[in-house]
Amino acid sequence: MELMKWLDDFTKRDWQYTRKGTVRIALVGLGWWTTDMVIPALKDSELCCTTTVVSSSKNKAMKIASKEATIEHAITYKEFHDGEARETYDAVYIATPNARHLEYAETAAKLGKGVLCEKPMEATVERAQRLVNVCDSNNVPLMVAYRMQTQPAIRRARELIDNGFIGKPVQAYGNNSQLLLNMFSNPDQWRLDSDLSGYGTSIMDLGIYPINTLRFLLRSDPVAVTAQTESFQEDFSDVPDERSAYTLTFENGTHAVCTASQNAYGDSQLKLTGTDGQIDLSPVFSGECTLELARSDTTAQIDFEDVDEMRAEFDYFADKLIRSEPPSPDGQHGLVDMRTMEAIYRAAHSGQVERIEQ
Amino acid sequence: MELMKWLDDFTKRDWQYTRKGTVRIALVGLGWWTTDMVIPALKDSELCCTTTVVSSSKNKAMKIASKEATIEHAITYKEFHDGEARETYDAVYIATPNARHLEYAETAAKLGKGVLCEKPMEATVERAQRLVNVCDSNNVPLMVAYRMQTQPAIRRARELIDNGFIGKPVQAYGNNSQLLLNMFSNPDQWRLDSDLSGYGTSIMDLGIYPINTLRFLLRSDPVAVTAQTESFQEDFSDVPDERSAYTLTFENGTHAVCTASQNAYGDSQLKLTGTDGQIDLSPVFSGECTLELARSDTTAQIDFEDVDEMRAEFDYFADKLIRSEPPSPDGQHGLVDMRTMEAIYRAAHSGQVERIEQ
Repeated sequence: MELMKWLDDFTKRDWQYTRKGTVRIALVGLGWWTTDMVIPALKDSELCCTTTVVSSSKNKAMKIASKEATIEHAITYKEFHDGEARETYDAVYIATPNARHLEYAETAAKLGKGVLCEKPMEATVERAQRLVNVCDSNNVPLMVAYRMQTQPAIRRARELIDNGFIGKPVQAYGNNSQLLLNMFSNPDQWRLDSDLSGYGTSIMDLGIYPINTLRFLLRSDPVAVTAQTESFQEDFSDVPDERSAYTLTFENGTHAVCTASQNAYGDSQLKLTGTDGQIDLSPVFSGECTLELARSDTTAQIDFEDVDEMRAEFDYFADKLIRSEPPSPDGQHGLVDMRTMEAIYRAAHSGQVERIEQ
Repeated sequence: MELMKWLDDFTKRDWQYTRKGTVRIALVGLGWWTTDMVIPALKDSELCCTTTVVSSSKNKAMKIASKEATIEHAITYKEFHDGEARETYDAVYIATPNARHLEYAETAAKLGKGVLCEKPMEATVERAQRLVNVCDSNNVPLMVAYRMQTQPAIRRARELIDNGFIGKPVQAYGNNSQLLLNMFSNPDQWRLDSDLSGYGTSIMDLGIYPINTLRFLLRSDPVAVTAQTESFQEDFSDVPDERSAYTLTFENGTHAVCTASQNAYGDSQLKLTGTDGQIDLSPVFSGECTLELARSDTTAQIDFEDVDEMRAEFDYFADKLIRSEPPSPDGQHGLVDMRTMEAIYRAAHSGQVERIEQ
């Protein structure tokens, strides 16, 4: 019975084609995401191994390296640019502030290393384009770390949509909100500094999740947007979007409405309604995920064991590298999000519908 | 304990102040809503009694009257305008196509009858204003039938927000969608005829629910909107909004994003996120309602016995009439929705943020 197989294989790594080989990783940027989420995830990776850590502070890097058996090299950003320990890693993972991605990708590309770059790719479209160019011209693989695309519930939702489960997609809703200043009490941080974050904060840091996931689910890209953004609190005075609300019209006609906030109770939801049914993912962007399906007056709630999205992300990347396959989501894919977000900020500023040249 | 009382009184009619008296109602417009929802609701009303029905067709009216013991008068629209059976009712309920509300309100006002008018009040702001004026100048009470405002879950949600449950409101989401042509297979119907529906269909007929309910919950009105609307199918060619997506900025700074569609799987949700918590109503506009609360990493789901919103609506109206209190939501309240929707259609057309003069 198809349903049995569907449930049995729900969390199966349908993207993995090899179980052999190891990609040695240098982690560039040792913020909380890298230390608390990525290093633990990589410990149990099938295909990756952290060998090198790169930080502004030698001490911080050495302290982290001392706790992990596989990490034998702790170097500074300067040493990284100088090519130190280059023979100890095959690829880099870049998790620095947005506006610093380009410089580390440039060095990695020139050293011939693969690049797994956190999202958003960079602070601006122009810099993201340069990041793509430098990887292309040095012929190194570039993947953007959209961990949502490895989330089993999202992959199953995509298959359902492909198979007509919701009929013709009509409208969608996405939200991603958090209390940034409860997570990091210091307001003097890069997410609130436009020089480092880029166009803004709530859309660049949180709003990118529903945008990219909707593109992934719909296999369609946004062509027009409207937006309203606002910053109220003093701590958010350097960015236009402590909170944001935006609409996206996709090439296939689907309308999406989204909100994102760095100063609201934590919540994430993604809902897609078609002519024949509905798919609701809530929560969705926080690592855990619940899938609710509705069709013909019948609903189903699918719960399953959480997978570590970052572990999957790295193995996904490594699986492609080991097999010399071009990784995806690639730089061109990431550029679409950059152009979409730039258009959203432009729309909030102009008060007009902004079209996106993809 | 406060929680016990809160649960015990969840569906209590906190708006009812009298149990004595009867308001005799003439139902104007005998579409499916009146026949299937309103007449059954009024059978068990505490304070209302249907005595008269008014329709374009004498036969239809007589047929309906013959089935209900209390309905002794079945008259045509022409007879209604001529004042026939005027002594048999105290107030009228108007549930005709939007663009016909004004003419029946005019006659009712001139006959000195109270008016309970379905939402949206009329086809355009200008006609809605005339409807308000005629009731004012004849000194008859006018209430707009926002049944959501009698829904216990919405009233409890409002109290929670008033008491700071979600902290400072930040953002909201509303959806209301249905498959109109599955409900009424004839595409030749007033909701798809702009002469009768007004500015459009999905926002006028469905999108008004999240707009009005958010105003009720937030005690704040929208000041600016953006919108995207589209009609794809031939049957929707006379209206701009088979589907619609819009953002609202409220006076208190809350951002709301909404979708509405007359051609999508049935769904309704209203979610409000603040700095300290979240209130999620889903479903919400279809008569049944579930309330989900989240605060401090704790969630609660409140289920309760459905109340008949239309019965509550009529008793709410009658309670005010009997006590000679001005009813609310009144015409001025309804006008705010009319101006908001007009601005949304204007924004969809202009591609610009449109401000609302309230």
